[in-house]
Amino acid sequence: MDFLTNDKLLISGAAGMIGSNMAQTAMMMRLTPNITLYDPYAPALEGVFEEMMHCGFEGFNLTFTSDVEEAFKGAKYIVSSGGAARKAGMTREDLLKGNAQIAEDFGKNVRKYCPDVNFVVVIFNPADITGLITLLYSGLKPTQVATLAALDSTRLRSELSKKFKISPDSVVNARTYGGHGEQMAVFASTTTVNGKPLTEIIGTEMLPQNDWEELRTRVVQGGANIIKLRGRSSFQSPSYLSIEMIAAAMGGKPFTWPAGTYVNDDRFKNIMMAMETVIDKSGIHYKEVKGTPEEEAELERSYKHLCDMRKEVIDLGIMPPIADWKELNPNM
Amino acid sequence: MDFLTNDKLLISGAAGMIGSNMAQTAMMMRLTPNITLYDPYAPALEGVFEEMMHCGFEGFNLTFTSDVEEAFKGAKYIVSSGGAARKAGMTREDLLKGNAQIAEDFGKNVRKYCPDVNFVVVIFNPADITGLITLLYSGLKPTQVATLAALDSTRLRSELSKKFKISPDSVVNARTYGGHGEQMAVFASTTTVNGKPLTEIIGTEMLPQNDWEELRTRVVQGGANIIKLRGRSSFQSPSYLSIEMIAAAMGGKPFTWPAGTYVNDDRFKNIMMAMETVIDKSGIHYKEVKGTPEEEAELERSYKHLCDMRKEVIDLGIMPPIADWKELNPNM
Repeated sequence: MDFLTNDKLLISGAAGMIGSNMAQTAMMMRLTPNITLYDPYAPALEGVFEEMMHCGFEGFNLTFTSDVEEAFKGAKYIVSSGGAARKAGMTREDLLKGNAQIAEDFGKNVRKYCPDVNFVVVIFNPADITGLITLLYSGLKPTQVATLAALDSTRLRSELSKKFKISPDSVVNARTYGGHGEQMAVFASTTTVNGKPLTEIIGTEMLPQNDWEELRTRVVQGGANIIKLRGRSSFQSPSYLSIEMIAAAMGGKPFTWPAGTYVNDDRFKNIMMAMETVIDKSGIHYKEVKGTPEEEAELERSYKHLCDMRKEVIDLGIMPPIADWKELNPNM
Repeated sequence: MDFLTNDKLLISGAAGMIGSNMAQTAMMMRLTPNITLYDPYAPALEGVFEEMMHCGFEGFNLTFTSDVEEAFKGAKYIVSSGGAARKAGMTREDLLKGNAQIAEDFGKNVRKYCPDVNFVVVIFNPADITGLITLLYSGLKPTQVATLAALDSTRLRSELSKKFKISPDSVVNARTYGGHGEQMAVFASTTTVNGKPLTEIIGTEMLPQNDWEELRTRVVQGGANIIKLRGRSSFQSPSYLSIEMIAAAMGGKPFTWPAGTYVNDDRFKNIMMAMETVIDKSGIHYKEVKGTPEEEAELERSYKHLCDMRKEVIDLGIMPPIADWKELNPNM
């Protein structure tokens, strides 16, 4: 049948709201017939499996397991939402400790059971850090691990669309870079609105500076707003976008929203963060980000914030000092 | 772009778990660019709209409203999950009273604001009754209103697949008919398992009579089992299947799982229930159901149970006596 690949896709954390949506999304997109759902919480996992069976999909070999070895063995693509959920009032950073530990285990499982995996998408927060830890412990190449960051850019697109009462399609190349946390760098200079550069609109009657600042705040707090409105953490958009990332890595339509990627160049060292990226069958690749001096400064601040979080995790003993990373993963 | 139609699709009850999944499913399937999300509960509805915007879909004119007139006006296709949710321990029938009233309002809104609608799918329980009430008050033709019933047949397929440890694709034509409640008629004579008639397998070593009875019970209690496992009512499979029904009515792949349809023939009078149906661009059409004498008797019992529920609703004053239906809807 019409699948992108026959390789095994592992959805880790499949019992949760995001994971179960990823399962449905992956099946609807017909990525591969061979999908395995993994979650340590067996009853809800079985419930998700049942729901997928009740959809009546055709052509699938869908399995579920709470056994780590069975889940990871032979996986060629993995998407993991398997962290603790963000609760109302929590920042993404509050989740740091618990999820850093989960990421370490996740990376080690990849190394142990499926070192030949092609591509891994990590989406549990703070994703920049959990993705970095996963990369470190998995031993994979930087091109093989990506984190979800697109959500910030799509939120910028959405806010501009609502502000100007135009189709989101008329907002082109909306971009945020750096951390996928409250210290993200919201760019304006990359974006056009109805063909007009956003930077030419900001500060005019169409979008006074103050309105733009408020709009940026809504972008940054987009996740918190969903919690306020729905009484639950955002789950449909992160799962949909992360499955689009996996689809691109499988050879589907390239994914061109910013994604979190490992960056280690003259400017940003040993960090995972959102850059201008493309995900395709060869993995994730990034280009340098260019913005106005103010935007560049904001990106630097976002980078420094991530460096602080990285230090926190190193101080917690979850990651070794950077100097020792190459021992764990020579690809870094 | 690649849409099935440009007609307006209204998703009623879009703020809930089923409705929000229907929104995502409809957008992923690219049914139509013109989708309106309606729900009386405005905050969660806005949250769902935001989530859909954050998916970054292209080519859509997605709107949301809590205003009935704005929602229904001009709708050509409607899917409604807009009832109260079933809680643990509740039977579908417990929901009868509240949801019957909601169905009456729903039907009246259709008649008032979008009498030119093409097709309506009703999925809130007890769907056989809410669908019947919707048809009555909407004034639509029986070919234009269908209810979700497929879930029982896909559950039978799933249970047989698990029992024999074979692909669900090797279970062909699994069917339940009659009510979409605990009085459904689970058929065996329509089904083949690996090419072999299920009726030839029941009572053999492969599937002793007692195992078959247990399996039937699991099918009937499939929804309750999801609540037990996930701690919430099934939402992914009902929403996915109902959007497949809408897609078929829009001219997509015909929907051939059983659906609830208005039946008024020599055998079954003035009732809505699952029959052997096809949904395509011309609406929903049914064929007579044929089974073993035992199956036919079970279907009769299911029909009688629905008649009892219908009587209950008539006694409640929500529907007039059958003799007066034609005044409300000459198509019935």
